[in-house]
Amino acid sequence: MAKRKICVVVTARPSYSRIRTALTAITNHPDLELQLVVAASALLDRYGKVSEHIKQEGFHINAQVYMVVEGENLVTSAKTTGVGLMELATVFDNLAPDIVVTIADRHETIATAIAAAFMNIPLAHVQGGEVTGSIDEKVRHAVTKLADYHLVATQRAAERVIRMGEDPASVFVTGCPSIDIAAQVLDEPDLTINPFEKYGGVGAEVNISNGYLVVMQHPVTTEYDRARKHVTETLHAVRDTGLPTLWFWPNVDAGSDGTSKGIRSFRELEQPANIHFFKNIPPEDFLRLIYHSRALIGNSSVAIRECSYLGIPAVNIGSRQLGRERGPNVVDVDYDRERIMQAIQTQVEAPRPEKVTLYGDGHAGERIAQTLADIPLKFTKRLTY
Amino acid sequence: MAKRKICVVVTARPSYSRIRTALTAITNHPDLELQLVVAASALLDRYGKVSEHIKQEGFHINAQVYMVVEGENLVTSAKTTGVGLMELATVFDNLAPDIVVTIADRHETIATAIAAAFMNIPLAHVQGGEVTGSIDEKVRHAVTKLADYHLVATQRAAERVIRMGEDPASVFVTGCPSIDIAAQVLDEPDLTINPFEKYGGVGAEVNISNGYLVVMQHPVTTEYDRARKHVTETLHAVRDTGLPTLWFWPNVDAGSDGTSKGIRSFRELEQPANIHFFKNIPPEDFLRLIYHSRALIGNSSVAIRECSYLGIPAVNIGSRQLGRERGPNVVDVDYDRERIMQAIQTQVEAPRPEKVTLYGDGHAGERIAQTLADIPLKFTKRLTY
Amino acid sequence: MAKRKICVVVTARPSYSRIRTALTAITNHPDLELQLVVAASALLDRYGKVSEHIKQEGFHINAQVYMVVEGENLVTSAKTTGVGLMELATVFDNLAPDIVVTIADRHETIATAIAAAFMNIPLAHVQGGEVTGSIDEKVRHAVTKLADYHLVATQRAAERVIRMGEDPASVFVTGCPSIDIAAQVLDEPDLTINPFEKYGGVGAEVNISNGYLVVMQHPVTTEYDRARKHVTETLHAVRDTGLPTLWFWPNVDAGSDGTSKGIRSFRELEQPANIHFFKNIPPEDFLRLIYHSRALIGNSSVAIRECSYLGIPAVNIGSRQLGRERGPNVVDVDYDRERIMQAIQTQVEAPRPEKVTLYGDGHAGERIAQTLADIPLKFTKRLTY
Amino acid sequence: MAKRKICVVVTARPSYSRIRTALTAITNHPDLELQLVVAASALLDRYGKVSEHIKQEGFHINAQVYMVVEGENLVTSAKTTGVGLMELATVFDNLAPDIVVTIADRHETIATAIAAAFMNIPLAHVQGGEVTGSIDEKVRHAVTKLADYHLVATQRAAERVIRMGEDPASVFVTGCPSIDIAAQVLDEPDLTINPFEKYGGVGAEVNISNGYLVVMQHPVTTEYDRARKHVTETLHAVRDTGLPTLWFWPNVDAGSDGTSKGIRSFRELEQPANIHFFKNIPPEDFLRLIYHSRALIGNSSVAIRECSYLGIPAVNIGSRQLGRERGPNVVDVDYDRERIMQAIQTQVEAPRPEKVTLYGDGHAGERIAQTLADIPLKFTKRLTY
Repeated sequence: MAKRKICVVVTARPSYSRIRTALTAITNHPDLELQLVVAASALLDRYGKVSEHIKQEGFHINAQVYMVVEGENLVTSAKTTGVGLMELATVFDNLAPDIVVTIADRHETIATAIAAAFMNIPLAHVQGGEVTGSIDEKVRHAVTKLADYHLVATQRAAERVIRMGEDPASVFVTGCPSIDIAAQVLDEPDLTINPFEKYGGVGAEVNISNGYLVVMQHPVTTEYDRARKHVTETLHAVRDTGLPTLWFWPNVDAGSDGTSKGIRSFRELEQPANIHFFKNIPPEDFLRLIYHSRALIGNSSVAIRECSYLGIPAVNIGSRQLGRERGPNVVDVDYDRERIMQAIQTQVEAPRPEKVTLYGDGHAGERIAQTLADIPLKFTKRLTY
Repeated sequence: MAKRKICVVVTARPSYSRIRTALTAITNHPDLELQLVVAASALLDRYGKVSEHIKQEGFHINAQVYMVVEGENLVTSAKTTGVGLMELATVFDNLAPDIVVTIADRHETIATAIAAAFMNIPLAHVQGGEVTGSIDEKVRHAVTKLADYHLVATQRAAERVIRMGEDPASVFVTGCPSIDIAAQVLDEPDLTINPFEKYGGVGAEVNISNGYLVVMQHPVTTEYDRARKHVTETLHAVRDTGLPTLWFWPNVDAGSDGTSKGIRSFRELEQPANIHFFKNIPPEDFLRLIYHSRALIGNSSVAIRECSYLGIPAVNIGSRQLGRERGPNVVDVDYDRERIMQAIQTQVEAPRPEKVTLYGDGHAGERIAQTLADIPLKFTKRLTY
Repeated sequence: MAKRKICVVVTARPSYSRIRTALTAITNHPDLELQLVVAASALLDRYGKVSEHIKQEGFHINAQVYMVVEGENLVTSAKTTGVGLMELATVFDNLAPDIVVTIADRHETIATAIAAAFMNIPLAHVQGGEVTGSIDEKVRHAVTKLADYHLVATQRAAERVIRMGEDPASVFVTGCPSIDIAAQVLDEPDLTINPFEKYGGVGAEVNISNGYLVVMQHPVTTEYDRARKHVTETLHAVRDTGLPTLWFWPNVDAGSDGTSKGIRSFRELEQPANIHFFKNIPPEDFLRLIYHSRALIGNSSVAIRECSYLGIPAVNIGSRQLGRERGPNVVDVDYDRERIMQAIQTQVEAPRPEKVTLYGDGHAGERIAQTLADIPLKFTKRLTY
Repeated sequence: MAKRKICVVVTARPSYSRIRTALTAITNHPDLELQLVVAASALLDRYGKVSEHIKQEGFHINAQVYMVVEGENLVTSAKTTGVGLMELATVFDNLAPDIVVTIADRHETIATAIAAAFMNIPLAHVQGGEVTGSIDEKVRHAVTKLADYHLVATQRAAERVIRMGEDPASVFVTGCPSIDIAAQVLDEPDLTINPFEKYGGVGAEVNISNGYLVVMQHPVTTEYDRARKHVTETLHAVRDTGLPTLWFWPNVDAGSDGTSKGIRSFRELEQPANIHFFKNIPPEDFLRLIYHSRALIGNSSVAIRECSYLGIPAVNIGSRQLGRERGPNVVDVDYDRERIMQAIQTQVEAPRPEKVTLYGDGHAGERIAQTLADIPLKFTKRLTY
């Protein structure tokens, strides 16, 4: 019997992290054949060119699609998605997959979802049913309504997807594959790398041997023009703690220009002595750095997901993760340098939080692959009420 | 105070019929300014070039966008939507509307929805919350998840939208503007035109003075390759009734080629003596012709909506309207020439069904305009559960 | 040594006819590997879906790209080319060819040329240097300026390309591959098929046993709105001759709607008893039908090219072939039913014209393949003056 | 009589400089109406957002079109042009210009040319007929073959255009509008600004009171991967002269990433004490800074054009300007730090070169406007041989 062709579209570095163990499990599954499409910011130098990394990890890329329309504003987010939709339709027409997999909720992922839905290809959505702020909220639930299968991270997410009118038989709680990597990191937790040597970066070379912070702050698209102001608050707070800090550059997004500009301007003017800035690095090293840190600061979902599993204190700033389920490791705080600094102090001084499996137990990738092998190949559905 | 700029995107003839009284009401509203964008099949000769009709009715078209990628298959449905998304983003960027209005659930309407949602323009969706078959089902509910405001036709639709997690304060039961036109037709019901003279068409010139059928059958996109077979069943059934019949050509859609081919082939081979074929005609004349007919046959939503208001018997064939609320005028039947013929006989012989206001009372256009003038200009939301 | 990857982009039925023997020769060449991309109207039902025909002839299609934006007007010609350019860039990025081959001068071929030129892939242009009317004239010479190699049909064409500033070392007189097929037809000239049985078509079933005409008339894009009027003149002339006629449907083009409408309307109203209408048929059968005809009428380049080789009288109507080199078989005439009819009479009664090798000797395909194997892989050039 | 609508498409900062005086002359002409479309890198922050500058100078922008597909490589150059072609067709369809004007030879300008040519809108090309290196060479001459009118800068250029087969009656020697600005600068040559105060920039704040160099070096697209190496040679040479230097950042182009990276890396590692880096600044200030400099270094066409008129020594590096006519002010040199340094020394020590009007006399803008008012509105042509 021919293997099922599973086409996974990766459009950004974080999406890759969140699907990688599933890619491996699909590759290894006797009944599945992986078709990997890499597109959008995953191809771009400015965002760490994760396509190269994907190849180095041994995956074959079936097609790559440049689709990011430059401008980093709201108009170009829409146009990027339009270009992607046009081209992914052609890619799917030529690859003829049995199932398409789309990941999470970045704006351009809806292009994958529409192309598959319109072409009567069964669509599996990984990581639906969560609640957050920003445009991601609209995209995520719209993709749920386009998808035939829902491979969700948590029980709560499954409940929400079903309440939105999806057939319970189409919803599977697999856990999040990003936790699989966290689980691997917990198995081999030693920090064997020197991040400055391995990844370069710019700014002060800080001493991380006595504890340090990790920061990752993304722009929030519905708060476009405030992105610069917001990141500046965090920069001041982190600088003022005086704690050695590894700061990781944000993703491509409407507004990333505001965030990037805020960071660049702060660096030029303030030359913070305790902060070193990095571009993206592979998730294992990133998670090991976090695992050995005193806290993760910013608005990355890593604070909510992986850090709950790893038991790492997190200071979550602003609205981006609003509504997402939290473990006991997270303290929320508004865009305010004073409060951010206080929250950092609190988290750094508190005892390590408990490890919880809210977002998965480390076997999500395998569960996703097996589900993709088992589900019927259907592409019609109807609201359940 | 500057008027609110309300940008309505019309992508097909039926969408125009379903929004026209709202366009008039927006134009006449003291606080609103209409920006009209005409796109997709609404510009094409093959589908009756409704753009010309729109101009003749006195509306100014602010921008027109050719976006239909030819092929009439599932690949090109997706690509059409991609082209539309790219270009509508540019159009919105140049027109700078305060609110964008998208209509119903044709595949390419999701391009309007995404462009507005991604550009932080409040999005109002007309005719969400209904349930049907085909890809429209996915598109309609995905647009609901992208929209900030829901101007729905029925109470049931409002309930569904709210159950999907939308804020009840964002849901308005306006009725369907298509019923407004039906109400106008009921006010002046006389059939003053001769359809053969006014609209030409091809095939037998049938005698309609003693009662006749009207047929409109669209392809169903998730049943692409069966479109030709399905229409052939209806053609045989209608031919075999021997009743004089006015048959209206379907819309652009993946599969319309199958339907069109089925019709062309039947005409060449069978030369049915009781059927005359028309392209699209304006809704008033169409509704008057239906009002004087003995029944509407096919899978058009007009059978469900306008005919419930007008009290006209309808034979609804197949899955396209599955799940939509029905008045007492509808008989459902499968794609089977025998059963279709029997259902036609039954409907033609039964007493006229009661008129009901399930889909509106004739004031939807005004309610939509007033709602657009009243709502706050917000573009963020969150699942209510 | 790895074979050179030769990527040929076929966007229409006539382009396929004009390159087919070269495709075979590339496939058979020990140093070359064929990458075949099929796009635009070559994928569409309405134009005979030549992609199916290509597969039946044993070629493997590496990628297919739907790109025709519907409307058949001048706006959509441009948009079609834009869609093609976007997508062909992705296709070339994924196929990584050593040389791209573009054929002739249809509007959308400039998309192939630009994608290759911008991506530093050596570009070979088949059939440059000719002179005609219509937008093709601009496209053809623009493609010459984008191309690195010029595989031209005639000595005159070579001279023109060189006069335009191209390096003589980059210009090769190969002859036109369409003549290769004509040469094969001359080797086996018997008409073994019944066109009505094999290809169906519509209209009167005419008796072709005592001589007949063949007609093929395309719209001329710079005379868009006159296309309908022009074809009507030809229809009248051909009808009035009373000669049995096989009429072949035109290509997709801005204006084809005018031509198509003219034909459809004439058929409905006049029901000409001596004309049978066909869609596209494979070139061998087409050429054999022409070879046994009394004359080819219309504005097809087949009249100029293949018919000069086959020695078939041709009546060339209007501006479309203006400037193209002619053999002794062609009579030119304006869009005027009287003159067209007279020219047909003259050609039908005159003795068969001499066969000439103006456009090739039947070995163009092999010469093109060998040239593609021999040329250096360069992609920079400079005006020679 | 209705004014002629002249639609000018500006896609980059340098194109704006080269057309600005013509825009003013069109605006002021009694028979002309300007329609201004701003697109591509002219909208982008990273390239100085010239659209803002255009508005500040009092021009009304009729439409703006984001079209740059990110990646800065050869694939995305092609895709950018494809997006532009699609969207400019829609823009022209909605603006309905009488003449479209396209400027020079950047890759994306061919989108403007094709859209106009395919839509039967007379196309005027400014700055054809020149000869240079890089992909611009192919684009420039291809645009010539698409254009109906040629408004060229020099007599030599006119001759070349005619030799390429264009009708001499369609060729006008207007001079280059960039010289108009240089002429205005010569009228008011005083350097009244402090560039560091007015434009910020990064790097050493150098003392420019005793003479200084200006550098502008663009990547060369057919030498994509060497862009970084090339700019590094220039950086070393300029650093090693020890002369105070104002370095201006390059344009968006395939390869600009290489150039940008080279500059960023050199800055980080070498921290050159004599170089200050700027983004784009308005042409008047730029030309005044050049006018007071000791030499212009790099591969900008300003060295060839404006500097010949201003009589400023220039060191032109590499192949980008190869073939362009030169005045006595230019010394050419290869990508080699030693030779570049020697050429700078030579130029700095030599007497000021003579001013020449090779590229215009300062009235090009007016001549262009008058020509656009006078020419017949034709859009067909034919090779003259």
